[in-house]
Amino acid sequence: MSFIGIDLGGTNIRGGLVDDLGNIINRRQEPTLAKEGADSVVNRLIHFIEFLSSQNSTLELKGIGVGCPGIIDIEQGVIHKSPNLPGFKDVPLKRILHEHFRVPSFIENDANTIAFGEKYYGVGKDVSSLVCLTLGTGVGGGIILDNKLWHGFNGMAAEVGHITIIPDGIKCGCGNNGCLEVYASATAVVNRAIDLISKGKESKLKDIFKSGAKLTAKMVYEAALENDLLSCQILDQTGKYLGIGIADLINLLNPEMIVIGGGMASAWDLLFPPMSLEIKKRAFDIPAQSARIVRAQLGDDAGIFGAAALVSHAVF
Amino acid sequence: MSFIGIDLGGTNIRGGLVDDLGNIINRRQEPTLAKEGADSVVNRLIHFIEFLSSQNSTLELKGIGVGCPGIIDIEQGVIHKSPNLPGFKDVPLKRILHEHFRVPSFIENDANTIAFGEKYYGVGKDVSSLVCLTLGTGVGGGIILDNKLWHGFNGMAAEVGHITIIPDGIKCGCGNNGCLEVYASATAVVNRAIDLISKGKESKLKDIFKSGAKLTAKMVYEAALENDLLSCQILDQTGKYLGIGIADLINLLNPEMIVIGGGMASAWDLLFPPMSLEIKKRAFDIPAQSARIVRAQLGDDAGIFGAAALVSHAVF
Repeated sequence: MSFIGIDLGGTNIRGGLVDDLGNIINRRQEPTLAKEGADSVVNRLIHFIEFLSSQNSTLELKGIGVGCPGIIDIEQGVIHKSPNLPGFKDVPLKRILHEHFRVPSFIENDANTIAFGEKYYGVGKDVSSLVCLTLGTGVGGGIILDNKLWHGFNGMAAEVGHITIIPDGIKCGCGNNGCLEVYASATAVVNRAIDLISKGKESKLKDIFKSGAKLTAKMVYEAALENDLLSCQILDQTGKYLGIGIADLINLLNPEMIVIGGGMASAWDLLFPPMSLEIKKRAFDIPAQSARIVRAQLGDDAGIFGAAALVSHAVF
Repeated sequence: MSFIGIDLGGTNIRGGLVDDLGNIINRRQEPTLAKEGADSVVNRLIHFIEFLSSQNSTLELKGIGVGCPGIIDIEQGVIHKSPNLPGFKDVPLKRILHEHFRVPSFIENDANTIAFGEKYYGVGKDVSSLVCLTLGTGVGGGIILDNKLWHGFNGMAAEVGHITIIPDGIKCGCGNNGCLEVYASATAVVNRAIDLISKGKESKLKDIFKSGAKLTAKMVYEAALENDLLSCQILDQTGKYLGIGIADLINLLNPEMIVIGGGMASAWDLLFPPMSLEIKKRAFDIPAQSARIVRAQLGDDAGIFGAAALVSHAVF
């Protein structure tokens, strides 16, 4: 049997046909062209899925899972709205896919999908509870308790990026001040570098910045690896902020595992030591010692695997 | 049928025989005399339960639930240790009670028991997810998701009092700095009053303080009701701190209800407005609007009801 997992992003549609051993036996990617509007994107998605499923005639297709950003009614499978998919307003994607393909379909928030992927096909296979943090442009989150995603009353749980770390801190796009997201995302790292360089701090990054080129979190990490003091300090501080947030998660949820993914996880060797120290300082000993804090395993495929897992989990 | 619920505290054993309509048809209280050690307390508890169960011969006793402070193995029903019950070390209370009374027995952390009581017999009857905060000497917590207590991997979840509110803040007994507990417990309110009065701030409480009498959170509340500016400011600030913590809970767990109990909940009319404002500022709109933030309903009986609910929940 097989499952189709789709990662419907604002930039690309990525998808895969996953067999019951957890291998992606076919994969595909094409631009979402989100600006063309919902009807166009949905049609493109249908063709995309048709192509994927046509690539295999031996394995019975058990269903289709789709992870996408935005406010989603999980039960009904309706995308109410999505900042990255303009034109999506109350799109009943679950029903559309079911009517077209006549197999069970599942729509899920993208950050939850990533957590689900890591749980069922990635680093979290042998645990029943985990919290997944995705450190990218923002900080996404997914909470798995008792082998299931915890959605909350409105399907809006697991906004791990929006717990308050510094009550009087930097303004966050969500309206709050001092969210984890504005301290531990890749964007936060870049903003801190720009801010400190603008204030006259010395750094290898100064020339890049002055040349007008766009600074990235990867540049900060690479400069830190070359012992650039400012970059080291920024990443050290980022690790500490992450530690504050993760200690909260440990004290509240006592999960078996914390999974950290997204682009920023590449700086693991520099983030992990200050993060661990902070957790040790702040969280209760027993839950802190038993929480395994690990890097995500599936990289860019987490969304595909997670979406496929929505199906396989429902089937089994 | 009937259920026995026991609130085994460091100072008192309180218990009740609860019928299947949720009425306490018999209740009893006696000193724990915790200093006499575990054997003595357990014997006293057995007599206590014998007395309670002997008070009713018509309703079949379905089981015994016990809520108590400390580190407990819920599944095995073993009290590993308890700060308030010195001498309790790996006491297999579940097995002892089962062998003596030959009915199912359940041991649970006291803060969880209170949350469970509010869920099954109190203000949370019609919701399936809630977070309960008990504002007393410390800040206790219980998390109910999908009608069940969330215990976490080591049974140590729901330490709501130990999420970090101010990262560089006041040292907490747990070792962390800036826990919710050191900002929103009754102890925190009293300490803030003492600190500010010592620094020369004017307040009606000054005379009480100078007389050497022990200040209480109730005195701060009563002074605030009489428009004592300092007391008003302290409670306003306490409401804000609570709001920071509750906004975290809402963004993370998107629960249907937040229940606030404990002695400090008596200051509800002064805590609620600043708390609500802070939540509105910090949490996402949809989950914040749908989370009902309410006062606990069962008062001192929450522990008895919750312990009884451990049994009734297992039976049904």
